[in-house]
Amino acid sequence: MNLQTQKDTLEVGRKLVGFCRSNQVVKAIETLYADDVQSREAMDSPGMPSESHGIENALKKNKQWEETMEIHSAQVDGPFPLGDRFAVHFKYDATDKSTNKSWQMEEVGIYTVQNGKIVKEEFFYTM
Amino acid sequence: MNLQTQKDTLEVGRKLVGFCRSNQVVKAIETLYADDVQSREAMDSPGMPSESHGIENALKKNKQWEETMEIHSAQVDGPFPLGDRFAVHFKYDATDKSTNKSWQMEEVGIYTVQNGKIVKEEFFYTM
Repeated sequence: MNLQTQKDTLEVGRKLVGFCRSNQVVKAIETLYADDVQSREAMDSPGMPSESHGIENALKKNKQWEETMEIHSAQVDGPFPLGDRFAVHFKYDATDKSTNKSWQMEEVGIYTVQNGKIVKEEFFYTM
Repeated sequence: MNLQTQKDTLEVGRKLVGFCRSNQVVKAIETLYADDVQSREAMDSPGMPSESHGIENALKKNKQWEETMEIHSAQVDGPFPLGDRFAVHFKYDATDKSTNKSWQMEEVGIYTVQNGKIVKEEFFYTM
């Protein structure tokens, strides 16, 4: 167990959670993500495979999410570190704009940090 | 993305969460864990390194936890699957029996499933 690694990871995690809580996800991606960040999602979504690469794809995913969902409230718990990774638990109260269906959505994100940047994001959820 | 793998993983996750919610962690370990399960914790604890192997160690960790902490209430969110892993978010309202100190504890567990058994558990948290 490298405690310094875990401390550095936690610092990046705190910044990410701060941005998410203040609804600044684009700024989080631009500031904290490595250029070639890997993304994994539990599900494919329209026009977006479950595995993708790069900041542009991360921004595109976020844009698609914002265009699809109206978020009424969000709860962001974390960061919870383990070595060079940290976990964040998200709960959303949202409405799908196209169907007007209400959702109580939850997911866990696991982020991997190298040299102060997020190099991998993995999202765990069900539909 | 192998959807069958994710479905099998989710099934094991549902059983684990069910056992945790009904306070049957020993039964969860005995029923769902592979004999040589790998364990990773964010921190070392007395007499227990952050990395260990085997069902006996998993049971020992759980016993140590139960001897140390009095749990007043627990919230278990999940399982949230991604491929052959699933995430669970735990929140505990607990008292440390030795110091009588109250804790609001949170952690995320990531579990890896192979052939219907949990082969790895990883716990993300801060103290």
